[in-house]
Order: sequence, then C-alpha cells, then structure tokens
Amino acid sequence: MLTVYSEKHRLRDAKTELHGGTFVRPFECPERAEIVLARVRQEGLGEVIAPRDFGLAPVLKVHDPDFVRFLENCWEDWVAAGGEGEALPNVWPTRAMNGKRIPRSIDGKLGYYALAGETSISDGTWEAARAGADVVLTAAEHLLSGQGQSAFALSRPPGHHAAADQYGGYCFLNNAAIAAQFARDKGVERLAVLDVDFHHGNGTQNIFYRRDDVFFASLHGDPMDAFPHFLGHADELGEDAGEGFNLNFPLPPGTDYSRWRDALDEALARIVAFKPGLLVVSLGVDTFEQDPISFFKLKSDDFADYGARIGTAMKAVSVPALFVMEGGYAVSEIGINTVNVLIGFEGA
Amino acid sequence: MLTVYSEKHRLRDAKTELHGGTFVRPFECPERAEIVLARVRQEGLGEVIAPRDFGLAPVLKVHDPDFVRFLENCWEDWVAAGGEGEALPNVWPTRAMNGKRIPRSIDGKLGYYALAGETSISDGTWEAARAGADVVLTAAEHLLSGQGQSAFALSRPPGHHAAADQYGGYCFLNNAAIAAQFARDKGVERLAVLDVDFHHGNGTQNIFYRRDDVFFASLHGDPMDAFPHFLGHADELGEDAGEGFNLNFPLPPGTDYSRWRDALDEALARIVAFKPGLLVVSLGVDTFEQDPISFFKLKSDDFADYGARIGTAMKAVSVPALFVMEGGYAVSEIGINTVNVLIGFEGA
Ligand SMILES: [Zn+2]
Ligand SMILES: [Zn+2]
Repeated sequence: MLTVYSEKHRLRDAKTELHGGTFVRPFECPERAEIVLARVRQEGLGEVIAPRDFGLAPVLKVHDPDFVRFLENCWEDWVAAGGEGEALPNVWPTRAMNGKRIPRSIDGKLGYYALAGETSISDGTWEAARAGADVVLTAAEHLLSGQGQSAFALSRPPGHHAAADQYGGYCFLNNAAIAAQFARDKGVERLAVLDVDFHHGNGTQNIFYRRDDVFFASLHGDPMDAFPHFLGHADELGEDAGEGFNLNFPLPPGTDYSRWRDALDEALARIVAFKPGLLVVSLGVDTFEQDPISFFKLKSDDFADYGARIGTAMKAVSVPALFVMEGGYAVSEIGINTVNVLIGFEGA
Repeated sequence: MLTVYSEKHRLRDAKTELHGGTFVRPFECPERAEIVLARVRQEGLGEVIAPRDFGLAPVLKVHDPDFVRFLENCWEDWVAAGGEGEALPNVWPTRAMNGKRIPRSIDGKLGYYALAGETSISDGTWEAARAGADVVLTAAEHLLSGQGQSAFALSRPPGHHAAADQYGGYCFLNNAAIAAQFARDKGVERLAVLDVDFHHGNGTQNIFYRRDDVFFASLHGDPMDAFPHFLGHADELGEDAGEGFNLNFPLPPGTDYSRWRDALDEALARIVAFKPGLLVVSLGVDTFEQDPISFFKLKSDDFADYGARIGTAMKAVSVPALFVMEGGYAVSEIGINTVNVLIGFEGA
C-alpha cells in the first residue's frame, strides 16, 4: 500500500490546548505522524512518497473562501492585534446571538469560524493544514489512476471535525471531504466515507448532509457524552437530496470490540449496498482502550481484525479504499494500531 | 439614593480568565464592588442596605429552569468529572452542528449554555450570582413601593450579557432583565432598559426582543470590533410584537464623549416617547478612557454629566430610575466614575 506523507505536518506544533480548564501540550502533536511513519517503514507497508502541490482549488471545492483566507491570515492577524498566547476564540454566535455578520477584529473572526475552543491556532498551522490536504489529494490521485486497491494518506493535522467554514477539534481543513470531492470531480459518481475515529466526523457529515452522491457513515462515542457533543445522533439521516445517505452509530462509554464490530459490519453492508466507486476511511485510532481522551475499549489486535473486515467487504465488490489519518492520542501505540488496520486490509 | 449591596458578591472570585490566548486573573474581580461601595459611602450617597431573599421565582421569570439548574450544579459536576482548572467550555453548538439535544456530560453542558469562553465558572459563582439577583430585586421593590426616584443595585457579578439560557462575558443571571420583569409583574405596564455599558447588552436585548412592553436601548462598541461581536447592530430593531422596541447605537473605536452624548440624548428621547413606568439603567463604566478592555474615551467628569442628562430627562416625566451595576475594569477609578453618574442623576 502506498503511503503519502509530508514533513510539513511538523509546522503544526501548537504549545497550548485548553483542556479541563487548564492549558496542556496538545494531544494532537507532531510525534503522532512520525511514529505512524516509522511503523509503516518497519512493517514494510510499501512505498512512501511526498505529496505534490494541488494549489487551493480542490480545497475551495469543500471550504468557504473567506474561511480559507481566515486560516491563512489568522496567526499574523492575531499577533498584530497583540495576542500574547496562541489564537483562541472567546465568544461565538450561538442561539442567543444572530451572528450573521462576520466581525472585523480577529477576536470576533476566531469566534465566527471556530466550533470548538481547545484548538489554538499557532504559527505554521496553515502551512501544515495545506500540506495535509495535498497529502490526501496525492493519495486520491494515485488511487484514481488505477494503481492499487488502497492508499494511505498520513495527513496531519486531522480533518474530520472541520466543516465548510469552521475549524476545531484539532482540525482545520477536512482532508477526507477534500479527497472525496476531488474523486467526485474526477468522475467517481458515488463516494462513501466511513469514519472509524472515536469522535463523530461532524465536519464531514455537515459538508455532505444534503447530498446523495456521498454516503457518510460514522461509528463514535455518543455525543451526549463525547466531543463534539452537538452532532452525531442516530436520527441524523441526511436532509433534502441527502436523506438516507447519512448513518451514525453513537456508542456508549466502555464500548468493546464485539459491539463496535457489529456496528462496523452494519455500516459496511450499507456502504456495499450504496455501490460507491471509492471508499474514503477517516482512520482515527482513538478507539484504542488506552486513549487518554476517549472511552472505547479496542485492543491492538482488534485494529487488524477490523482492517480485514473492511478489506473483505470492499474487495468483494472491487471498491478501492483511501485511508486518511485522523485522531489517536495514545501516542506510543498509534503506529501499531494504525498500521494494523492497513495490514489487516491488505491481507483480506 | 438608596444602595443595595451584598457581601456575597465576594464568592465570585474566579482565578482564571481566558484572555489573548493566556490565562489572566479576571478583570471582573471582587475589588470592583468594594471600591464602588467605598465611594458610595465617601460621597454620602445615602443608605446602604443588604438584600432580602426573593427565592428563585423572579429569576425563573427570565431564565430557563434547566439553565438555572446547570449554573447551580456546574461547579460540583465539573469537579466530579475531574476538571483540573475552573470550568470552561471547549465546544459549542454553532451553525455546522444542530445542538438540539443538551448533552449529559458537564463538558457538553458547558458548551451548550455558554455564549463566551473567557468566563470560568468557579466555586461560589452560583451563590454570588443568586445574591446579585436579590440585590436588584430588593432595589426594584424599594422603588416600586414609591420610596424615591432612584435606587442603586450594586450587584456583582454583572448580568447584561446573560441570555435566557446562556452565560458569558462575566455574566450568569441577567440582573437588569430580572428587575425589569419583576417590575412588570408588579404592575408596571411599560419598562425601559438603557444600557450604557461599553459592551452591547446582548442578553437583555435577546430576552426582550419579541416584546413591546420593554423598550431596550444600548450604546456600545460596534460589534464588528468589540465583544460580544455577534449582536448589537443598528438594524436590530426587535421582532414580532417587539419590532420597533429595540434600539442600538454601535459606536466606533475612539468614540469620545460628545459623540457618545449625542447617542445618549437620542436614546433618552426615544425612551421618553415610550412613556415607561420605570427606567432600568445597565450601568457599566467601561466607557472610561482608561478601561483596559474597551475603546471609548469618556473622562470621569463625563460620567457626572451623563448622569445629569438621564436625571433631567426622567425627572421631567416623573420616571424613577433603577441603576444596576454592570461592567467597568479600570478598577481604581470605578468608584469615582460610577458614583459620578449617580450624583449627576441626583443633582439634575
Ligand atoms: Zn478523534
Ligand atoms: Zn462591559
């Protein structure tokens, strides 16, 4: 399996995450990608290549141009306004404020474009996020050229929480959605996105919620208990043309692999029935039992098993799979768990 | 002029405010009320009394019961969930998430009920906020009994940013709205709220936005540039029955007294035309030129002048005025500026 990786991910190296009312070093740290890369090489998964530069056009197929400009300029604007720490929002447009106008000041813009407040925007964040989009686009292009049944986009920062015009949950650009839209624009008529990250892929769901050409399925911690808290319920089925093309499996604290696997099998059956031309897997491994910010109980071997299940289901119908790195914060095990999924898929 | 004051405000003594991407000691600190009280006494403004306990009923006329229960239990729930610092939200329901369900976990509840993220909820916050409501209710009751033309509710924490079911901007319960609603329920047919705090009184506007029995006027920093950023524009005129009963004067950075005074005179003329039975003044003195988080240029003498203008306008039509303490963060001058308004009013 080809892996695409860019060293530019290291530019995303924020010093502060708001966690439990204190500042901690971000759980989403550069070592994550380095450890996954080391494991890819150790296991001989296949060639590792650098991305090519796709420019902003495929990003702007998914994200709002003003939002992209905000991300591009945020750090500079924040420093110019005298921000002492890293850029964090302090007020946002919720139900008691109409929020139709985008404020002029960077404080206001941060609140307008944020959907979560743990994620500091720091120097280099934009460059890393842009490179992350190039990573998934390069991997998608490779698959679309007919080379192989699978590819691994080792993108960082992750993307699945980012909506068309909002960032948060460590995510800035929605890599999985950008890849899916790119494939769509290259002629793949139907796409499926399977999100196996512990957290609901709220950004991806939101981006495709009114469309019938992209089927979205997510297995995740029940939003009543888990971030992002305000999306990911079982009754969110899609809207308008998209009705019936969104599938959520909110799962309770302590969910173990047997229960999680049952949900996966159901999601895979629905994906197969949808007959996609390509599957994008939002691959977060924070379902791991030792993850510090999650509450599922998967063990390292379970990752290999579910990789094989995805592989068996997709290979039976000749659907190629693009794996896109998302979360996973048990850093020392992130390489083993991630690559177990990929090896499981290959061996199926 | 009678002053109502409760020592319980001191229970609101959070250690952390999120400011510029760092934690600072909150600008909204206990010394504020102590310094205003000292000035009230030094200037011989009049008697100072403690509030009586009104219970929660008048609070629940304005605020959602689940929100009140959240405030009451927040600190305990936060500690039980292992929060290390003070309670801060990290994700909230904005446009890309539907947010119809209230999460079970305290992290989710914080995001659901917060409209801003600078304001930590700390031990004692609820007790202080409740006492602050009793302060304004006691002052309102005093005025409604026909004793005097004015009263001063030296409430703390402030209230005007708090909506029916959201807190933020240092505010938890909307003291001005609670007082206005109390007066309404005691038979005052029409109420006006004049908000002279530097910041838009978004909570008060939101609470009364669809009503024609409470006229709301606010002079404040343009939300394009200033907190709360997402409400307070000039074209927000009220809705449904409330259309025409909301009046905003968003003013630019550097606004001096002559410009501010012109807006005040216009607001007062509109209030007089409305023929209210009582005026509630949301009295924040963060319009002061030395305020650390604001951008107007009022000098200490200007506060006396505008107090006199309010007094002249209201006394001409025999409308009593209830002054409710809101913001003001140039702490050493907060007593002088606040009491200047009250003395100006009395002397008119
Ligand atoms: Zn995750
Ligand atoms: Zn203020």
